[in-house]
Amino acid sequence: MKLARPLPPGSTIGILGGGQLARMLALAAARMGIDCHIYAPEVDSPAFSVSAHHTVASYTDFCALAEFAANVDAITYEFENVPGETAEFLGRRSVLAPSASVLKIAQDRLVEKTFISSLGIEVALFAAVDDERSLEKALTLIGRPSILKTRRLGYDGKGQTRIDATTGVALAWRDIGKTPAILEGFVPFETEVSIIAARGWDGALVSYDVTQNEHENHVLRRSTVPARISAAMAEEASRIAAKIIAALGYVGVIGIEMFALGNRLLVNELAPRVHNSGHWTMDGCTVSQFEQHVRAVCGWPLGSTERHSDATMTNLLGDEADEWERLSGEAGTAVHLYGKHLARPGRKMGHINRVTPRQA
Amino acid sequence: MKLARPLPPGSTIGILGGGQLARMLALAAARMGIDCHIYAPEVDSPAFSVSAHHTVASYTDFCALAEFAANVDAITYEFENVPGETAEFLGRRSVLAPSASVLKIAQDRLVEKTFISSLGIEVALFAAVDDERSLEKALTLIGRPSILKTRRLGYDGKGQTRIDATTGVALAWRDIGKTPAILEGFVPFETEVSIIAARGWDGALVSYDVTQNEHENHVLRRSTVPARISAAMAEEASRIAAKIIAALGYVGVIGIEMFALGNRLLVNELAPRVHNSGHWTMDGCTVSQFEQHVRAVCGWPLGSTERHSDATMTNLLGDEADEWERLSGEAGTAVHLYGKHLARPGRKMGHINRVTPRQA
Repeated sequence: MKLARPLPPGSTIGILGGGQLARMLALAAARMGIDCHIYAPEVDSPAFSVSAHHTVASYTDFCALAEFAANVDAITYEFENVPGETAEFLGRRSVLAPSASVLKIAQDRLVEKTFISSLGIEVALFAAVDDERSLEKALTLIGRPSILKTRRLGYDGKGQTRIDATTGVALAWRDIGKTPAILEGFVPFETEVSIIAARGWDGALVSYDVTQNEHENHVLRRSTVPARISAAMAEEASRIAAKIIAALGYVGVIGIEMFALGNRLLVNELAPRVHNSGHWTMDGCTVSQFEQHVRAVCGWPLGSTERHSDATMTNLLGDEADEWERLSGEAGTAVHLYGKHLARPGRKMGHINRVTPRQA
Repeated sequence: MKLARPLPPGSTIGILGGGQLARMLALAAARMGIDCHIYAPEVDSPAFSVSAHHTVASYTDFCALAEFAANVDAITYEFENVPGETAEFLGRRSVLAPSASVLKIAQDRLVEKTFISSLGIEVALFAAVDDERSLEKALTLIGRPSILKTRRLGYDGKGQTRIDATTGVALAWRDIGKTPAILEGFVPFETEVSIIAARGWDGALVSYDVTQNEHENHVLRRSTVPARISAAMAEEASRIAAKIIAALGYVGVIGIEMFALGNRLLVNELAPRVHNSGHWTMDGCTVSQFEQHVRAVCGWPLGSTERHSDATMTNLLGDEADEWERLSGEAGTAVHLYGKHLARPGRKMGHINRVTPRQA
C-alpha cells in the first residue's frame, strides 16, 4: 500500500526489529510526536523501553504480524533480512517503506549488483557462483585476489572469504557453506566512503555529506565527515545515490557503501535502512538520518541535510562502552549508549560523535 | 540522600511529573542508556510513551511514592510545585536532586527574593504582604506601578496582578485571592533574559549562553540566542548564576530569569528544573539542557555548553502545532512536538528551533 496522506503527529509507526537502529528511530519519532510500535522476537530488545507499544513475536508469526499491521499507520524496519514473505504480507495490509520489492533486491548480492550495474553505475567485477565448477569459471574471468560471498544473509564480514593466489577452490567453496554465491573482484580501494540519502513518497530526494569509513575486522570502527575526497567525487556520489533510489522508487533512508579508487567510485553495497555510517548526523545536522527516515516514511517534508559541524563517529564495541564516564567528560563528545545489558566482545554497545566547528 | 557514585548506564532515574519537560528528559536519558520511571497523576502523561516505567498516582500517595523510591536509583522532577512533604519523604528514601531544601526556597517568592538579595544580587524592590494593611504599607515603600504576586503556586502570569496609579488596594488584594503575597516594584526593563546553568554533585559549574526572551500574555513566546546584551553583562549573568547555585548547594539544571536595565541585571525568578527558555540547546549545542540535567543528577561529568549554532526557539501554543507540516518543511527548522492529544488554547504543544550558523 502507498501512503494516502502525511501521517499527523499522534500517528503510530511500526518498526520490525528492536535493536539500536530501531531505538534511535523511536527517539527521533518521539521528538516529532509520532508513537512507535516495535515488533521483535527478543524480549529484551533495546527499543522497547523508549516506545509506546511493542510485540514480542517471530518474524514469521503471521497472526502476530496481522495484528501488528492492524494497529499501526505505516511500517518500516531496521534490518534488511526481513523474510520476503513477511514483507509482502505486511505490504498488502499496511503501508510498508521501503517496499518489499526493494528488499528483494537488497537481500541478494547478485541481484543487487546486477541492478546497480544495469543503471550504468560501476561495481566490482562479479559473477554468479553455484558450485565448484562455476567458481572455477568465475575465477578465470575475474582473477585473483577476489572475494567469494554468499548471495544472502551476509553482514559484518560474515558469509565471505578471500581467494588469494594460492587459495584452493574447494576450500573457498566449503568456507562459505556451499551456498549460492557471488564472486567479486578485489578492489584495491584507497578510501571507503558511504552516502546516506533519502527519498519521499513524492519523489523528493536529499543526501547527506559523504562520509569516510574505516573498518576493523569487517566491522565499522570510525566514520568521518567530511570525507577526504574531491568535491567532484562527492557530487558524483550524490548523483549515484539519486540514480539508485529513484530507480528503486525508494521511500526512506538508504545507506550506500562505495569504494574510491583514483577518481572512480564503485558501489559496494546498499543498506535499505538507516546506517551505522550515518550516526554522525545525530550531532552534525539539525535533522538526523533517523528523523529523516521517519519523515520520509510518514510523508512529511524531507529535512535539510546541511552539516552544521564536522564530526567523527566511533563505534563502542563490547567493553569499550565501559569508558562512558571518561568519554562523556570530553568536551565536544556526544555519547550514545544503546541500553544493551550484555557487552559481548565486538557487540555494538554505543557510539560517540566527536564534533568540531565546520571548517569548509 | 547524596549520590554515592555515578550511576552507570542501565540505571533508572525517577521523574516526578509527566509533561513535556519529563518527556524531553526521558529522551535525553535514553540516549545515555539511562532508563526512566515517570511518576504522574495523569493517565495520558506525554512522558509515559517514551519511558521504560511509569506510575499513575497522586503526589501525596505515600505508599506509591515509597514503592517508586524503592525502584529507582535517583529522583528528580519537572516542576517546582512538588509538595514539600513529598520532596522530603523522597529525599529520605532515595537520592533527590535538586534537594527538598532548594524546593522550599524556590516555591515561595518571598523566601526566594530574600535569599537572592542576601547574596548581594539585585532584585526588584519587594515587601511581604499578608493583608490589606500590609499591602498599603508596602505600596508606600515601593510605590506604583508595582506587581502583587502570591507567594506560592504562581506561573505563566497566574496569581499576580499589576497595581497602577489608580488601582484600589482592596481590589488588588481580592484579585490574588487574599493569600500571602509579595509586592514587587515594577521594573521598566529593556530586555528579559535568562540563563540556564548546572551544577554537579562534585560542585562543578557550567552555564549556557544567555538567552533573550519575549513573553506574550505572560507566556514565553520566543527565546533567542545570542541575547542582544553586552559581553560584560553576559559574563555578569553567568557569575550571578554561579553564585546562586553554589549557595544553594544545587545539583541539576536551573533556569534563572533576569531583567536587563541599562547595565544592571535584576533576578526575577528561579526555576529549579529544566526551563522552556533552554529548549534551544536541543539544536544549538551538542549537550542539551535535558542531557545536562540527567548528567548532573546521575553524577556524570557535566557536558560542554558550547553553542555550535545560533537559534531562535518559538513555542507552539494550542492549534499553532497544526502547522507541523509547513514548519517541518522549513530548512534549518527543528520541530519538536510533545505528543499531547488535546490542543487547548494556549497549551504548550511543541516548539520549533530555527537554527542558523553561529555568527559570533
